[in-house]
Amino acid sequence: MSNASVENVRLSDDGESVIILDQTLLPNERKFLELSEAGEMYGAIKTLKVRGAPAIGIFAAYALCALAHRIRASDHGDFISQIMDLSEYLDSARPTAANLSKQLRRMEKLVESCGGMSVTQILEAMRDEAESIQLEDIAMCRAISEHGLSLIRDGFGILTHCNAGPLATSLYGTGLGPILLGHERGMKLDVFCCETRPLLQGARLTSYELSRAGVSCTLICDNMASIVMKEGKIDAVFVGCDRLARNGDAANKIGTGGLAVLAKHYGVPFYVFCPSSTMDPSCATGADIKIEQRKPDEIKELYFEKPMAPHDVNCYNPAFDVTDNALISAIVTEDGICVAPFEKSLRLGAVRQ
Amino acid sequence: MSNASVENVRLSDDGESVIILDQTLLPNERKFLELSEAGEMYGAIKTLKVRGAPAIGIFAAYALCALAHRIRASDHGDFISQIMDLSEYLDSARPTAANLSKQLRRMEKLVESCGGMSVTQILEAMRDEAESIQLEDIAMCRAISEHGLSLIRDGFGILTHCNAGPLATSLYGTGLGPILLGHERGMKLDVFCCETRPLLQGARLTSYELSRAGVSCTLICDNMASIVMKEGKIDAVFVGCDRLARNGDAANKIGTGGLAVLAKHYGVPFYVFCPSSTMDPSCATGADIKIEQRKPDEIKELYFEKPMAPHDVNCYNPAFDVTDNALISAIVTEDGICVAPFEKSLRLGAVRQ
Repeated sequence: MSNASVENVRLSDDGESVIILDQTLLPNERKFLELSEAGEMYGAIKTLKVRGAPAIGIFAAYALCALAHRIRASDHGDFISQIMDLSEYLDSARPTAANLSKQLRRMEKLVESCGGMSVTQILEAMRDEAESIQLEDIAMCRAISEHGLSLIRDGFGILTHCNAGPLATSLYGTGLGPILLGHERGMKLDVFCCETRPLLQGARLTSYELSRAGVSCTLICDNMASIVMKEGKIDAVFVGCDRLARNGDAANKIGTGGLAVLAKHYGVPFYVFCPSSTMDPSCATGADIKIEQRKPDEIKELYFEKPMAPHDVNCYNPAFDVTDNALISAIVTEDGICVAPFEKSLRLGAVRQ
Repeated sequence: MSNASVENVRLSDDGESVIILDQTLLPNERKFLELSEAGEMYGAIKTLKVRGAPAIGIFAAYALCALAHRIRASDHGDFISQIMDLSEYLDSARPTAANLSKQLRRMEKLVESCGGMSVTQILEAMRDEAESIQLEDIAMCRAISEHGLSLIRDGFGILTHCNAGPLATSLYGTGLGPILLGHERGMKLDVFCCETRPLLQGARLTSYELSRAGVSCTLICDNMASIVMKEGKIDAVFVGCDRLARNGDAANKIGTGGLAVLAKHYGVPFYVFCPSSTMDPSCATGADIKIEQRKPDEIKELYFEKPMAPHDVNCYNPAFDVTDNALISAIVTEDGICVAPFEKSLRLGAVRQ
């Protein structure tokens, strides 16, 4: 496959490292990093140099390929065992995004099935599998964008949170997919981007992606979502998803759940864009989803010229929240548009795992 | 009167300048500014060096006193006329806070009533009036704090937005008043401060005031208000007010209206703390309240080490929003606790103007 059009994550030509666009430096700097050590890869996930549930899954699959190249093993069993250890290590970098663990499990299963193969053959099979994951993500993004497009009309105002665009996935993205596709097809859309504190993915990444694509976009602070809905500027809310429970409760970037409450209050449809790779059949409801807690510095210091609060003040910094299924108008997957009751419409038994 | 205990705004000893604590530099620096030129005073209001509806009103009254000292007039009529011009100029610095125009009108009326007096006598009367405004504010804060205290119990979790503490008023403050008073009386309270983008008054000022007072406080990003309510951490929301319409619609810092929607959804009482000086009988409803729009730089650049969005991205930056009266559990004034229907309970005809 050609990686030419996907810039956020790709395997190097020799297959021994993964090249990513460092998302923490955008929009001020477009810097690509070539990562070949496990520690660097773990750090890239942890510090959000690579982020977005689908993108993390793709990155982890390629990371495992690259690391497998560097393994010096005494025998076949030792080789497999080292791959499993590396996979477990990468998986521990972030707990909430379903795709990280899911794609690593997929790679592990592949490796386990490579019993009679040589190391060279295993490396090749791993690379094929990782490429399949990325190709499937591209196909997923296209399908989800087409489905989502049916939910909007020319002239719509759309509110979005965090970043569910190409940087978080492949090509079109999930939540931004219908917007970018609609724009390509000549629709005039007005997108409002919540800046998404504390890490400002909406300000730094979404408004960057939309501006580059030529889509009309307006940046607001998260606490302005209510006023733009009240003023009638918003016809639909589009958000991504990091882990979806069987009943349709959806974990996504902190602030998403509050937007859903506001949308309900103002009568604005609230749509969650969720590839099936993000569904977690082991979670019956949102209560089963582990929420990642991050450091207080992100709120008080990161990005700021000076500390923006007393140095010893306590902070609470959950990276995600869970949107109750009752607040969701529809969940859009690559297979179609699912409405309540979600347990049934998502047909979890049928989707790929 | 002694200004010793009020540090945010005071008249200099010679009456020719106003001394303020520069609120834009907190919590990193406690710097006092001595202002004697009209342009500096206008700028201090505009750039939020002095902020908080009651504090702006007090500042403007003192500012007019200080500026009156510097007037070189040909006759009595010219003197009065120059004061009116200065008052109009200061009033134009910010449109939403009711107290700015209200206290300036009060000073103008006083000056108009000084027909037979000498300039020295007028200056003295102006100083007395400005001090009365501040003394009334102190009394208001005490009364509002006592009333508010009846709404909370030991162990309460309280969510607050922006800054409605001593820096925004005098002494206890309005929204923070019951918290500081309750703490003095031995109550254990857990306060959650929304950081309040874009200007971070919650992070910089409220958490600073609460920490200094020894009150347990936790800083969160604005988009985390929903999760802390959902997790049961919040028993009441306390906010200030910048302008109150006759029907109880309340303009306050951007984000307040959204918090009220969330509080309603989660069944958390939502209280607005509003001195009668903040009521505007000329506004029948919130639709009559003019919302100040501020510069995009506040969202994209101010406080940040680097621009946090593409430099040319459009921003929408309303400084306030209006909370619908239907979302307000009670409005607490210095006269007591008002519940719906507010048009009646606020008894606007009876309050001081």
